[in-house]
Amino acid sequence: MSFYFEILKTENKARAGVFHTPHGDIPTPVFAPVGTQATVKAVPPRDLKETGASLVLANTYHLHLRPGSELVREMGGLHRFMGWDSPILTDSGGFQVFSLAQINKIDDDGVTFRSHLDGSKHRLTPEISVKIQENLGADIIMAFDECPLPTDRQIVERAVARTGRWAARCREAHPDMSVQALFGIQQGGIFEDLRGQSSETLRALDFPGYAVGGLAVGESKGQMYSTLDFAVPMLPDDKPRYLMGVGAPDDLAQAILRGIDVFDCVLPTRIARHGAVFTPDGTMNMGNLAHARDERPIDPECDCYTCQHFTRAYVRHLVKAKELLAHYLLSVHNIRFLIRHVEAMRAAIFAGTLTDYVERFLGRYLATG
Amino acid sequence: MSFYFEILKTENKARAGVFHTPHGDIPTPVFAPVGTQATVKAVPPRDLKETGASLVLANTYHLHLRPGSELVREMGGLHRFMGWDSPILTDSGGFQVFSLAQINKIDDDGVTFRSHLDGSKHRLTPEISVKIQENLGADIIMAFDECPLPTDRQIVERAVARTGRWAARCREAHPDMSVQALFGIQQGGIFEDLRGQSSETLRALDFPGYAVGGLAVGESKGQMYSTLDFAVPMLPDDKPRYLMGVGAPDDLAQAILRGIDVFDCVLPTRIARHGAVFTPDGTMNMGNLAHARDERPIDPECDCYTCQHFTRAYVRHLVKAKELLAHYLLSVHNIRFLIRHVEAMRAAIFAGTLTDYVERFLGRYLATG
Repeated sequence: MSFYFEILKTENKARAGVFHTPHGDIPTPVFAPVGTQATVKAVPPRDLKETGASLVLANTYHLHLRPGSELVREMGGLHRFMGWDSPILTDSGGFQVFSLAQINKIDDDGVTFRSHLDGSKHRLTPEISVKIQENLGADIIMAFDECPLPTDRQIVERAVARTGRWAARCREAHPDMSVQALFGIQQGGIFEDLRGQSSETLRALDFPGYAVGGLAVGESKGQMYSTLDFAVPMLPDDKPRYLMGVGAPDDLAQAILRGIDVFDCVLPTRIARHGAVFTPDGTMNMGNLAHARDERPIDPECDCYTCQHFTRAYVRHLVKAKELLAHYLLSVHNIRFLIRHVEAMRAAIFAGTLTDYVERFLGRYLATG
Repeated sequence: MSFYFEILKTENKARAGVFHTPHGDIPTPVFAPVGTQATVKAVPPRDLKETGASLVLANTYHLHLRPGSELVREMGGLHRFMGWDSPILTDSGGFQVFSLAQINKIDDDGVTFRSHLDGSKHRLTPEISVKIQENLGADIIMAFDECPLPTDRQIVERAVARTGRWAARCREAHPDMSVQALFGIQQGGIFEDLRGQSSETLRALDFPGYAVGGLAVGESKGQMYSTLDFAVPMLPDDKPRYLMGVGAPDDLAQAILRGIDVFDCVLPTRIARHGAVFTPDGTMNMGNLAHARDERPIDPECDCYTCQHFTRAYVRHLVKAKELLAHYLLSVHNIRFLIRHVEAMRAAIFAGTLTDYVERFLGRYLATG
């Protein structure tokens, strides 16, 4: 069996496990850095490996537009193309179409849109999304879904129905799960009955993994957590559960407590490009004058390349001088910070101390000082 | 003795040797990548080490303006600040003042100028340049010189006289050569008698190394080579000879034939940021459509990280998508290309085959196809 999810230990709702894939094992819970255009911005693959990353997400929408999925297939697939031999996950392209492209038409069959790059016209349907993802060749691929604002009940209702029909079509378009595992995406916004309805449809289709979609797109953190309270247990216990687009350190903790296994987020690399870093005491802006003569590393508790070799003073200089190396050093630290955080929670689940860990972590991380 | 230059083998005018410094040995001939603002753009120090770099140049003008040489000194000096424990060379700041800043006043004492960053007013004199370079703490530091356009005899004459007086003041301001070796800079443009005059003044000051300045700033390649023909033999045989700001592969070959030992240039990292790479067949623009489906590495003969792991197709994708990783991958290749080229010439000098190597290299590199 190419894909197999093992749960090794639980603590309340939280789970520590391993998701076995053809490109290697993914210890869960896991945080996946995002390589939108087949590169985690500014970080070479070997350095990414060194951060402890075991899974990388790439974006179907971006790669479809440039360089095109056929080209990636001809070049041997994403793993070979981007020089990353560990597991890869691609999203369905749906979220980016709705957030980046100019939509021309949405109907029950799919979406017609114009590229944000050159205005060229494109069409995505469940079948086309699956085909593109097959060309890209990621280990985990996602069903094409409609992702609405989570708090408008009428819109969410329609999205749940459509996402269910599209999930069935994706499942039919991708019957063989031995090389690429297709995950279904639960929708339903913040509404318990709609999450229930969506889950029922998806469970009937028997996916090898399930995502909680439509969160972290505008609702409050409180709404996200209370939605996870009821939405996660609706998904099968024995399959990996993936919370899409979530990566803030506090959200990772809250979601792992609620039984999530897989995360992805652009946050560590995006805030890096704006000069910000994660620390156990919250985020920190490295451009601040306070760091100008500070000989400490960004985070004295961190084992990343950046913190092992460079002072805050140097990093601040690079940020102020707008040097390319700043993007690299800050991205490496931020990715390692999140992965170390998730590794610590995995270890805590094995030790039965997750609740303590999260309480201590949040007490410090969220303290306003 | 902290600094000691050994010539191990010669072939005609060319020399293979070792320049011993407090931060390690520099095998010569050597090409030094440029880390203008205390970072070789986009390349982490450990990756730079992997390219074979044994010497890095940093710019006094830039570091004086930001973050300031006092700050670098407080942070333990440039080596510690930028995480580079091998030899470092700083220039005097003169060239950048004349090319980047807005000059307010030049007189025999020094130069008053406005920063290109914020318009703030600054002054550089031989003594101030030495002091800044002492704060920065590089192994090799340079005398403050006036670098004129090399073809205007009247201007060059004045610069030779002034550079000589400034060299004497630098020498006096930096009497102890045990920690930092101060190199003198020969001026004289393309004029043999002026180069002779400049050399005489400098030789009398007994520097541990000498640079040929004022070339590669507007004259033709032919003029540069014929100037080197007479200018290099005017410098002491037993000291390293440094051709400032030169790094084109053909120029490196021509200058090594003529007895140059040390080079620095921004070329490999600058052309990388414009999507261009060195190859044995000349430079190549990686954005070209021709590379879109090319599974070969940039240079099949290259042993750099980029060529060992990535296809032209992937590199082209990164260049077209304006991805940060492109700067890293192209810079690493270009630096390694020049260092490999210089390493090959050093080996050829030991083998007595330099003339053949250069002929073959130039025949291929300069062929227009």
